[in-house]
Amino acid sequence: MTFPVVGMVGGGQLARMTHEAGIPLGIKFKLLSDTPQDSAAQVVSDVVIGDYRDLETLRAFARGCDVITFDHEHVPTEHLRALEADGIPVRPGPDALVHAQDKGVMRAKLDAIGVPCPRHRLVSDPADVERFAAEGEGFPVILKTVRGGYDGKGVWVVRSSKEAEEPFRAGVPVLAEEKVDFVRELAANIVRSPHGQAVAYPVVESIQVDGVCDTVIAPAPDLDPELAGQAQELALRIAKELNVVGHLAVELFEAVAPDGARRILVNELAMRPHNSGHWTQDGAITSQFANHVRAVLDLPLGDPRPRARWTVMANVLGGDYPDMYYAYLHCMARDPQLKIHMYGKDVKPGRKVGHVNTYGDDLADVRERAAHAAGYLRGTITE
Amino acid sequence: MTFPVVGMVGGGQLARMTHEAGIPLGIKFKLLSDTPQDSAAQVVSDVVIGDYRDLETLRAFARGCDVITFDHEHVPTEHLRALEADGIPVRPGPDALVHAQDKGVMRAKLDAIGVPCPRHRLVSDPADVERFAAEGEGFPVILKTVRGGYDGKGVWVVRSSKEAEEPFRAGVPVLAEEKVDFVRELAANIVRSPHGQAVAYPVVESIQVDGVCDTVIAPAPDLDPELAGQAQELALRIAKELNVVGHLAVELFEAVAPDGARRILVNELAMRPHNSGHWTQDGAITSQFANHVRAVLDLPLGDPRPRARWTVMANVLGGDYPDMYYAYLHCMARDPQLKIHMYGKDVKPGRKVGHVNTYGDDLADVRERAAHAAGYLRGTITE
Repeated sequence: MTFPVVGMVGGGQLARMTHEAGIPLGIKFKLLSDTPQDSAAQVVSDVVIGDYRDLETLRAFARGCDVITFDHEHVPTEHLRALEADGIPVRPGPDALVHAQDKGVMRAKLDAIGVPCPRHRLVSDPADVERFAAEGEGFPVILKTVRGGYDGKGVWVVRSSKEAEEPFRAGVPVLAEEKVDFVRELAANIVRSPHGQAVAYPVVESIQVDGVCDTVIAPAPDLDPELAGQAQELALRIAKELNVVGHLAVELFEAVAPDGARRILVNELAMRPHNSGHWTQDGAITSQFANHVRAVLDLPLGDPRPRARWTVMANVLGGDYPDMYYAYLHCMARDPQLKIHMYGKDVKPGRKVGHVNTYGDDLADVRERAAHAAGYLRGTITE
Repeated sequence: MTFPVVGMVGGGQLARMTHEAGIPLGIKFKLLSDTPQDSAAQVVSDVVIGDYRDLETLRAFARGCDVITFDHEHVPTEHLRALEADGIPVRPGPDALVHAQDKGVMRAKLDAIGVPCPRHRLVSDPADVERFAAEGEGFPVILKTVRGGYDGKGVWVVRSSKEAEEPFRAGVPVLAEEKVDFVRELAANIVRSPHGQAVAYPVVESIQVDGVCDTVIAPAPDLDPELAGQAQELALRIAKELNVVGHLAVELFEAVAPDGARRILVNELAMRPHNSGHWTQDGAITSQFANHVRAVLDLPLGDPRPRARWTVMANVLGGDYPDMYYAYLHCMARDPQLKIHMYGKDVKPGRKVGHVNTYGDDLADVRERAAHAAGYLRGTITE
């Protein structure tokens, strides 16, 4: 057979949707999953059940693959170096990935390459947090464990050194950041290939609720075109400097500078397909998933431009009802253009179990349709 | 779990692409495949290897499913009735499917409901074929075995009663049809659900080469809007009269009537996703595959309207080179908007191994891009 084998580590919804995008390319998809019930394991043919943290499991899995890529960013750096030593391309590579895995390393690197960030430094204890606050505008400040956080976990907003005690209990280094008084959050997503070709998606607005992504609007409404261009160039530069291969999501704050002008600051990096890019499945010529596959295979990238004037993604989180399928009748009948993307995961309150995409020319209408469908699926809207 | 299990009989590319469309809906997909290397078996998690012609194999497979549907039309009618007797919904049902399986039954039914067809009747031997020819415009005439034909097989163009001997050797009843002097071939595709909701796709032009579909243009250029409307209504009526559930492809001839007006005649029916509808994967709001899944699950149907002014599909047939993956570099670099759909099948000369879709505002450009990519993948174009 002539088609390559892409090995995906991690069986979550990102792997599921990457497999979905890989099917039409005829490539072979091999999955390393924690359990057979994982989101991606339900829809992939070639699944190995095993623990990615065990090096021998990982190496055995990789042996049948032409390239390894990831659904998450938790694979230890040393394991990835071992795979590279075995001769398997790892994309993105460990030297890039560490900047998505360790926020302290990420901040140091972004500083070194002159990328605007919130004021920040590593802090050693609550007293140090108090000093950090005093060095700037005072409390509240943001504290983050340098490793392990996602969807609001591992992040604290603290208003005093007393509240600053909890983050240190994990025994992991803690990063302090100023709490940015942002106008809104944006994401500048790009895909970069091993030979350096890169494409930039339209900059989007990302709305978080309780620390979790709720809605994404593509493109970000009323975003100054020059600021949008700056955001895209920033993401492309970060990808190049860090040698990222595959999809890179750069989460940004749009804030007002002292002189009143708008400016952007980098919040987080993710080196995998990302929630802020799910809209591309229906709203762009080439989805983030399809381009991630092309990039890790070193194939020419697909056109990232939008196919619709406005595209909105709304996350579907678990609510009180375990059965979301019953909601399809209403949602599909109400909106024949609705694009549903469910992950096959058991419903647990607050858990990401799917998303919906809507698109069209009228932003208010596109937003309402997405919000209604997501709410109805979740059970918070009942008619 | 609350999501239903769709059982698909047959592991070809239609099953592969139906599974692809089902992934975002979170539904469970179970496949009955001849071999593990079949197109769909390569990408589906829950695969049973077995012979659909064996009733017990089929019944055991269906037992875990909420509905059964098909990648092909070869499952014997009696087997399907047995599944229905077991209480498993079969969609489309045996009473509908027989009209796609048996051309004699199909012609009789279409006559009964007043659908325009080429002049036709069953013929018993070469002498009868000579009489049939004499009853009309003479030779050549078309001969078809009533069962088993596809992609040009089981169809003969005969110019004399001597040439008419071969079709009868199969021992299967033979249908004679006048050879229509058509202007072009069209397809009117619809999807219908169990409760009677139906959607009609834009009527397309279908170009055959050596009896096999080569190119599909959506919508059919310069098609009189009234004739297009007639074609869609015809397809909807056929689906209703035959109680088709799921996708129905009505292949048509556009011909010139004696009075000089354009008219349509029904050529063939297919009750499954069809080659003439592959363009919908990238050119319509809801693909034929996604709507087929919704229909068999009795879910509200998705919007069938186009997303682009012109969409063209070009089939990729096997050529002299076993390796098509090498061609991706060129095709993807030349056209970043190209949408490739490969089936994972081994390359054999003339075999359908994939298709490409292109879309845009300039029909000549869209056609050129599709033809170039398909030719390059096949190996008939080398630069």
